Amino acid sequence: MNILIVYAHPESQSLNGSLKDFAVSHLQAAGHNVQVSDLYAMQWKAALDAGDNTEPSPGPFQPSQDSQHAYHNGTQSPDIAAEQKKLQWSDTVIFQFPLWWFSMPAIMKGWVERVYAYGFAYGVGEHSDTHWGDRYGEGKMTGKRAMLIVTTGGWEPHYSARGINGPIDDLLFPIHHGILHYPGFTVLPPLVFYRTGRTDENRYSQMLYELTERLNTLENASPIAFRQQNGGDYDIPSLTLKTDITPEINGFSAHVK
Amino acid sequence: MNILIVYAHPESQSLNGSLKDFAVSHLQAAGHNVQVSDLYAMQWKAALDAGDNTEPSPGPFQPSQDSQHAYHNGTQSPDIAAEQKKLQWSDTVIFQFPLWWFSMPAIMKGWVERVYAYGFAYGVGEHSDTHWGDRYGEGKMTGKRAMLIVTTGGWEPHYSARGINGPIDDLLFPIHHGILHYPGFTVLPPLVFYRTGRTDENRYSQMLYELTERLNTLENASPIAFRQQNGGDYDIPSLTLKTDITPEINGFSAHVK
Repeated sequence: MNILIVYAHPESQSLNGSLKDFAVSHLQAAGHNVQVSDLYAMQWKAALDAGDNTEPSPGPFQPSQDSQHAYHNGTQSPDIAAEQKKLQWSDTVIFQFPLWWFSMPAIMKGWVERVYAYGFAYGVGEHSDTHWGDRYGEGKMTGKRAMLIVTTGGWEPHYSARGINGPIDDLLFPIHHGILHYPGFTVLPPLVFYRTGRTDENRYSQMLYELTERLNTLENASPIAFRQQNGGDYDIPSLTLKTDITPEINGFSAHVK
Repeated sequence: MNILIVYAHPESQSLNGSLKDFAVSHLQAAGHNVQVSDLYAMQWKAALDAGDNTEPSPGPFQPSQDSQHAYHNGTQSPDIAAEQKKLQWSDTVIFQFPLWWFSMPAIMKGWVERVYAYGFAYGVGEHSDTHWGDRYGEGKMTGKRAMLIVTTGGWEPHYSARGINGPIDDLLFPIHHGILHYPGFTVLPPLVFYRTGRTDENRYSQMLYELTERLNTLENASPIAFRQQNGGDYDIPSLTLKTDITPEINGFSAHVK
């Protein structure tokens, strides 16, 4: 497989750096082709702005419209186009990052905002009475798999169903569903390492074991069963779940079969 | 009151820019002192890195520890110290931004990551059998109010209880609870404007009316009733809700009284 690792940590000599290096070596040894977008090392520009189009449209900057024009006219900033090319090349994408303030680091959020151009990751497909664009299960990433590898300093029970931080699956839903399922990725369950400030040699060995297991099963692990937007479960255009679909469930979990 | 507006949009001649300008004028006319952190105009550095400490510690960069040293030794990057000073000055903080990929723009996430130093916004207070640090309802922001003003291109029903994007309150929970309640802010309900791509003159007038109402009630509006971490509802150190607290509820909503 072709595997892209989008990676965000400011220090190469960190737990995250070690896990990333291990993943690259292990995947290559297994015969895969690996590319890494090491966002800090690349000094990735985090802020989406008018400079993302090398030939900005006249008048006030309109983020979506300008992104669309740049994507269609081939005038995107070269760093954006290069990342899109890597995505197109990939069969599987791994996003690895430390959980900072309950989400991905700003530099990775800025990768999403800038690489996810209008016409590439959203604003794709036709709108009709039965089809609200190619999104949430359809889109240009269809057929590709994606998985998060996340480290957090917090304790696992703090991220449990009744833990104070909120359940980890709910905290990651905006990424899993809103960033990965949206343009068509098949989303694998995340690999989350907790309380990483207390990583001794034994714990690190255990992490490598768990990581190896997940890397070895990228091709056949069962994905999160998110519903397809245009698969019949949603009313269009309100895009609310039909009344006969798990009527007793509200919120994020209603969108998983 | 002293009011800080932390604002992120790349175009001053945008709906967000107009709403921000209106808010500043209206609040000043009402006698408040207003400061604005216009992150794009300030070219705010989004990526947290070793450069955030003007005298970096030797050895590999450790984000939390380095942040702690810089905060305590007065060697933080001046842009970070300036924002902390604005926060200390403020009675109320408004965060205004377009919802991009179901969260705040990267440039604002980077404001949180860099300004929220160890010792300032986390790592505050003592840990004991009955007190797990000053957080989730206690901390240096205690006594200050905070409110989000959010615009989104999506339709309101798509953000409803059974809407495909997930409920807006759940999407904003990591910000409301994890970023604002965490260091002690009293969090007001958000002001959310939907489907902003279709803003005609009538709709804009209505927005200003709703915005005015919320600006006029900053001091006395009822906040979101998040539970206090050290208030008796949570077991310590697992920080899970005690079994007799709304035992039938899991997830984000269990943390609101």
